[in-house]
Amino acid sequence: MTNVRVGIVGPTGYAGMELVRLVAGHPRLSLSYLAGSGARTGPLDAHLPHLRPLADLLPPVEPLDVRKAAETCDLVFVALPSGESGRVAWDIAQSGKARGVKVIDLSGDLRLPKDVYETWYGRPALPEEALASARYGLPERDRASIRDAHVVANPGCYATACALAVLPLGEWLSDVTGPIIFDAKSGVTGAGRAPKPHLHLGELANDVYPYRVGLHQHTPEIERAIGERARVLLTTQLLPVPRGILVCAYVPLPPDRAPMVYDRYTSFCEREPFLRLLPEGEMPHIKAVNGTNECHIAVRWDERSRLLQVFSAIDNLGKGAAGQAVQNANLMFGWPETEGLELVPLWM
Amino acid sequence: MTNVRVGIVGPTGYAGMELVRLVAGHPRLSLSYLAGSGARTGPLDAHLPHLRPLADLLPPVEPLDVRKAAETCDLVFVALPSGESGRVAWDIAQSGKARGVKVIDLSGDLRLPKDVYETWYGRPALPEEALASARYGLPERDRASIRDAHVVANPGCYATACALAVLPLGEWLSDVTGPIIFDAKSGVTGAGRAPKPHLHLGELANDVYPYRVGLHQHTPEIERAIGERARVLLTTQLLPVPRGILVCAYVPLPPDRAPMVYDRYTSFCEREPFLRLLPEGEMPHIKAVNGTNECHIAVRWDERSRLLQVFSAIDNLGKGAAGQAVQNANLMFGWPETEGLELVPLWM
Amino acid sequence: MTNVRVGIVGPTGYAGMELVRLVAGHPRLSLSYLAGSGARTGPLDAHLPHLRPLADLLPPVEPLDVRKAAETCDLVFVALPSGESGRVAWDIAQSGKARGVKVIDLSGDLRLPKDVYETWYGRPALPEEALASARYGLPERDRASIRDAHVVANPGCYATACALAVLPLGEWLSDVTGPIIFDAKSGVTGAGRAPKPHLHLGELANDVYPYRVGLHQHTPEIERAIGERARVLLTTQLLPVPRGILVCAYVPLPPDRAPMVYDRYTSFCEREPFLRLLPEGEMPHIKAVNGTNECHIAVRWDERSRLLQVFSAIDNLGKGAAGQAVQNANLMFGWPETEGLELVPLWM
Amino acid sequence: MTNVRVGIVGPTGYAGMELVRLVAGHPRLSLSYLAGSGARTGPLDAHLPHLRPLADLLPPVEPLDVRKAAETCDLVFVALPSGESGRVAWDIAQSGKARGVKVIDLSGDLRLPKDVYETWYGRPALPEEALASARYGLPERDRASIRDAHVVANPGCYATACALAVLPLGEWLSDVTGPIIFDAKSGVTGAGRAPKPHLHLGELANDVYPYRVGLHQHTPEIERAIGERARVLLTTQLLPVPRGILVCAYVPLPPDRAPMVYDRYTSFCEREPFLRLLPEGEMPHIKAVNGTNECHIAVRWDERSRLLQVFSAIDNLGKGAAGQAVQNANLMFGWPETEGLELVPLWM
Repeated sequence: MTNVRVGIVGPTGYAGMELVRLVAGHPRLSLSYLAGSGARTGPLDAHLPHLRPLADLLPPVEPLDVRKAAETCDLVFVALPSGESGRVAWDIAQSGKARGVKVIDLSGDLRLPKDVYETWYGRPALPEEALASARYGLPERDRASIRDAHVVANPGCYATACALAVLPLGEWLSDVTGPIIFDAKSGVTGAGRAPKPHLHLGELANDVYPYRVGLHQHTPEIERAIGERARVLLTTQLLPVPRGILVCAYVPLPPDRAPMVYDRYTSFCEREPFLRLLPEGEMPHIKAVNGTNECHIAVRWDERSRLLQVFSAIDNLGKGAAGQAVQNANLMFGWPETEGLELVPLWM
Repeated sequence: MTNVRVGIVGPTGYAGMELVRLVAGHPRLSLSYLAGSGARTGPLDAHLPHLRPLADLLPPVEPLDVRKAAETCDLVFVALPSGESGRVAWDIAQSGKARGVKVIDLSGDLRLPKDVYETWYGRPALPEEALASARYGLPERDRASIRDAHVVANPGCYATACALAVLPLGEWLSDVTGPIIFDAKSGVTGAGRAPKPHLHLGELANDVYPYRVGLHQHTPEIERAIGERARVLLTTQLLPVPRGILVCAYVPLPPDRAPMVYDRYTSFCEREPFLRLLPEGEMPHIKAVNGTNECHIAVRWDERSRLLQVFSAIDNLGKGAAGQAVQNANLMFGWPETEGLELVPLWM
Repeated sequence: MTNVRVGIVGPTGYAGMELVRLVAGHPRLSLSYLAGSGARTGPLDAHLPHLRPLADLLPPVEPLDVRKAAETCDLVFVALPSGESGRVAWDIAQSGKARGVKVIDLSGDLRLPKDVYETWYGRPALPEEALASARYGLPERDRASIRDAHVVANPGCYATACALAVLPLGEWLSDVTGPIIFDAKSGVTGAGRAPKPHLHLGELANDVYPYRVGLHQHTPEIERAIGERARVLLTTQLLPVPRGILVCAYVPLPPDRAPMVYDRYTSFCEREPFLRLLPEGEMPHIKAVNGTNECHIAVRWDERSRLLQVFSAIDNLGKGAAGQAVQNANLMFGWPETEGLELVPLWM
Repeated sequence: MTNVRVGIVGPTGYAGMELVRLVAGHPRLSLSYLAGSGARTGPLDAHLPHLRPLADLLPPVEPLDVRKAAETCDLVFVALPSGESGRVAWDIAQSGKARGVKVIDLSGDLRLPKDVYETWYGRPALPEEALASARYGLPERDRASIRDAHVVANPGCYATACALAVLPLGEWLSDVTGPIIFDAKSGVTGAGRAPKPHLHLGELANDVYPYRVGLHQHTPEIERAIGERARVLLTTQLLPVPRGILVCAYVPLPPDRAPMVYDRYTSFCEREPFLRLLPEGEMPHIKAVNGTNECHIAVRWDERSRLLQVFSAIDNLGKGAAGQAVQNANLMFGWPETEGLELVPLWM
């Protein structure tokens, strides 16, 4: 059954190593090609000691060879930094077009229109053709479109947590009476694995602070994901923990909708395998979704301020990256969406 | 010069032990009486090994004797849990009235009118006479009133961080066009030192989550501190760190004020010894104020959402509790407000 | 295939909740009975939000009924505090004897002879008959004996990490020229989930310290596990992390054995599914074994001091508790020892 | 009184920023020159937000100018990485010789004889003349010699914690019957502030592991500090906390000394302002010495193994670096040794 050969580009990064873990445990996928863009080559478990039990399953990390990826894999995940990743994904997709290779890019490079990308990322976008080839891959919104995609742009971690918080509102999103505020906090793996001064444990331990407020490149991604009319304010904050995103959304919904909100969320979430609406009065914990593809959601109408509050928690490496990428792969291959993702979670 | 004799009730709690540290380093205060309400009596450094260098300065912890406190101290800090603390503070104030004993209560018991207290704290308030005797002690707002107070109700930690974020707006607070949202996060010492299941390191490490949302008892305290017209939504969240509060405030200020906001904050903060307005583009770090009485503030107008964002960071045990209590004591005794509080901070 | 019905007594403790996770993912076990000794009854996922995805698989937590456990389960794990757990295990084993119920006790109550237990645990031991009925369950040492056991005393977490560090020495253990030192450090879940002052995150964060040095009740357990002649010094230290034990063992081996040590460890570990000898020069990380049943081991001869150093790392809730309990269950039922334990690990 | 002008070279490193804090609070020292070797120049508080309250006291960070340091300062602390720091210290000492400038180097470059340095550090040592000019600065051992030194080599953090654990044994150190084992654990600031992959919070959080075992360059420093006859085994381990070193020392003392050990430690520690022998049965906490120049010590005779156990805890940036450097400065200037170091500690 495990006959789909998978390549992972960037397996020593945080999203990449999580993809290795998920692919290794997936009943229909087999790891066949690992490629890095930099210095880390050779046995993967030498860089990542937690993967030692998988050592026999792991191909060595090789310097990236686009042609090899395109010719030997059926599915390639590309998890390099933005600015580099989309180009590689597009090259592999082009080279492997005849063979029908499927490609999922985990970076921001293929998610936005050219002008929006260039404004928010501050660098030239890929050619229009590349951008046009990729489908945005938020299954709760784009399921049908993903099913026949060949290239999927996997959503950003903040964008996923924010969009899932309000997507259950559906067409009510057009009726909000003001901006939607997303006060979002993320664990440090969201910043990537490359060492940087502010990510040093000696700096970040015991600290919490906002960063890139109002400038975060996931802002336009959220606006597009939830509908062009929304005005979004995204506040991003860094947490001294490895994983997890917690979003508090403040939605100025017309007050007459308040009594129907919980039901609306209930019916939306019931249809979704990875959205879990919490009982009224309970709140999501980032720790409860660590290592999974789950999104925990709570909703609350605040009568004092007449605002709807929505809380969502995901693992930024799970539903925010590698888990969602595997969910997208399941859709692209026509398999059950939860295949390989029914993870028994860990209370760390 | 150190002739003011100080009593601390509750020195083994988090606010109490921080008071011990601050009083020990204060040039005009001397520790003369330590009293606990429970089992922890005897040498304080046996319970708190970091206080060993102070061992010779520390009176033993005795079971609380209100009369002794009232008769032997000039100033008493009461730092017991709410529901117990205000009563003790009031009793000491009554017993020591003739001697002019000054009392600062760090709990919520003396901060609110009777009906508001009973609604939010879910228990009977103290007698009106007790409530009326106490002045609310936020120096940046109540300086004059604190100077001749005999009993001060020291503000709550969240209330301090939220109020300081918007007080510089002054009368503009009357012009906001909607509710003010305070998305607030706190380190665990804000929950007190008594062991509880959810405060176990095995539970809280790696986790972050909202709690008591919309129900937190600091909500009415903030509303009173910033002016009765404000409608406030307070979201409280628990962080896996010992200390620190970070508040992101979202203020619907009329957009025509935007160009003048930074100047307004500048002139307010310049007059205040413990408010520090950060240069534009910088954001407050909770770690930068640990162990101090500082409040770091940043402001930013978000043109996309047309909201004013204000960020404030305090140490919940510093400006949010013990530091502010010492600042209030300085005011009550007519000393320079920064006496004993010019702390050289630690990048932990 | 999943026809062995499992009961777990104590599913809201740390070892118990990890058992729930492992049993839920085990292909031959099905959860049929959950029983608590205290207040936490009802749906387990209400206490443990990370288990929500398993909600449909989880029987409700009931007050313990020994008869029900004995009559409806084929296998019962008992994971209560020492002093309570062994009695319950023994009662269930007695009640279920006719049906051949198998019982695995995770406490210290059934691991030691009466006098040794009473000396180190400071309370009366269970009756000799109970003690005699239980087999000590360290598979790397007791595999044959476990296979036909009905009651297994699952080893302690420190005892497992220490014993596995030196068991590969085999009969060379008789030749050591002095005491064996185990300098051991453990994450906080080893102290149980009941709230205690020193386990509060506000206390333990940023701290590390030794405790119960020379008095830890795993000392005699280690001595018995590695052979009665060994004199053992166990230094136990608390780490501000949820999981993981790291042991540094100092073994006064005769220097002429030095050149053969690595080979000896290699051949021992090759035969063991969960022992992983690291390449020379690499050191074990507690994080690399989190959530697994692995034990990572490194060995090094120190020529300067003429001592053998052995380093071992386990997850105190995995190989140190729940994982090892499942491994023992696999042995008791004659299944492959790795069944349900080939966990794809998580770099937290 | 504050008329000694101080220069700090390397003020944005961990030891350097702690020196800034201590010098700013020292009654006889004034900060007059800050110099970096790299890119971080300009206002120091722009790099280190916790220093904002000191902004008015802080000279800007300039590119290093040896001549300026030598001509404008009375005392210079050099806190650059080993391999660079000693050379700078020596250059400043040479340039400032006529003026009698005093220099304290916090690196390893001036601590060891040429051949030992080259063996353990793997790079050429400084000229013999430079090495000979520097006195090793462990006040508890070298007080007299430090008093008339012009150049002091400040001890390493591990070396300090290990040496202080056993120095109270005095001449008994010659009588040990085997190697002394130091099982040592350190917070991450001991590894410096330069970003490296393994210091990323995403890597080190939740982890603990040994590193450079048997190869750590503090090994020969310890041996020299405690007497050439000792054979030392130093095991160094990394902790996921910012600060603190905990050492467990295992000393094969002749058993007849056991009854006298506690008294011996008592009389030694009583004479030392920064050594604090804990009551029998108590153990040192790294958190209890954070931010101070204290060393907490516990001793215990283990009858089972017939070994003496000594436990010591220091702040690697305090007594292990900046605190000890200030203590040395006090000695060099003939001031009370505790001047500026009577720090009221913080329970973080």
